[in-house]
Amino acid sequence: MLESSAKDFVSALSSKEPIPGGGGASAYVGSMGMALGVMVGNLTVGKKKYADVEAEVKILMEKSEKVIARFQSLVAEDAAAFYPLSQVYGMPKNTEEEIQRKEETLQKALVNATLVPLEIARCCAEGIDLQEEFAQKGTRIAISDVGVGVAFLKAALEGAKLNVLINTQIMKDQEFKHRIETELADLCTVYTAKADRIFAEVQNSITGGKSS
Amino acid sequence: MLESSAKDFVSALSSKEPIPGGGGASAYVGSMGMALGVMVGNLTVGKKKYADVEAEVKILMEKSEKVIARFQSLVAEDAAAFYPLSQVYGMPKNTEEEIQRKEETLQKALVNATLVPLEIARCCAEGIDLQEEFAQKGTRIAISDVGVGVAFLKAALEGAKLNVLINTQIMKDQEFKHRIETELADLCTVYTAKADRIFAEVQNSITGGKSS
Repeated sequence: MLESSAKDFVSALSSKEPIPGGGGASAYVGSMGMALGVMVGNLTVGKKKYADVEAEVKILMEKSEKVIARFQSLVAEDAAAFYPLSQVYGMPKNTEEEIQRKEETLQKALVNATLVPLEIARCCAEGIDLQEEFAQKGTRIAISDVGVGVAFLKAALEGAKLNVLINTQIMKDQEFKHRIETELADLCTVYTAKADRIFAEVQNSITGGKSS
Repeated sequence: MLESSAKDFVSALSSKEPIPGGGGASAYVGSMGMALGVMVGNLTVGKKKYADVEAEVKILMEKSEKVIARFQSLVAEDAAAFYPLSQVYGMPKNTEEEIQRKEETLQKALVNATLVPLEIARCCAEGIDLQEEFAQKGTRIAISDVGVGVAFLKAALEGAKLNVLINTQIMKDQEFKHRIETELADLCTVYTAKADRIFAEVQNSITGGKSS
């Protein structure tokens, strides 16, 4: 899906076709957030002023590239998980048997359609941790880009959250639903706050603390 | 820039090349946010249940397509405005004359490099207003996508903000700087709060008000 042009990806997103949807778009936005961190890393390495953090920044960049690759796989995984769910709505429900088959297919499809956006949320959390280090160690000249990156990762986390929640609502397995929703709520509480703090610190370091 | 693949756009973003940068990426993420609104529109029109809002939803979709096109132009405009600024840092400053020429070129480049992300912020505000209507009128089946869209538009607004602020800091024209920063601060105050409210309403409508 990411092989088509960036413009076509947006057109595909706006169509009524079930994929790509909000989950895949969130994973893609997450990869863009990480790319901004890597850009700041690229502008930091090789500069005398930052020689003492160069080795650490290189490790950060390697870790970030792995998260980018993971996010990009998740765009495809989300499509693969969501497509079967989108097809359930078209199944017949005229007989008792059809109704039962439809419900079973739905419940089965919901599992993956929930686990994939949860994995996107986990990747966002990992990404936000990495951006925190870019904010501390990266070149000051491009520090705004770390702030933009962290804003993207927070949006991707929130996008993933809604994609988990819309599916857990109709899930029958209460134990599974509870476990997923608890992990998600914990991740969101910690990492939206952390993203907000990093963003505010970046903004302060740009403006010298004056509010805007 | 958006003609290359979605994957290559992320690679270009992560490189040390000055463009695309955080401003253009914000405009692109804004276009993705709007596309999610249009998707919800596409899933709404033609459905009996939503026949009474169909005409309004169609108008919303047309307005959103215009905002998408504007965001995509702004990706190119941001690159065109930022590139000259990125070149200033390489200018010589060995003589008084060179120092003066460099400073004049910098101040001139800063004007466009500030006005373009400000325009991105204005488009985000317009987009958030449109998403509010999609949240009210769009099909419930895809309501999570409006929430994801509004999270993307808020991130794009915050990204645009940092790109304005990093440039106004070194601007000499205090009257211009003040005017830009005031408009930006007003936009951000109103529209980050509005985006948060729409997102919370979408989440509540998914979970029936239970927190997560």
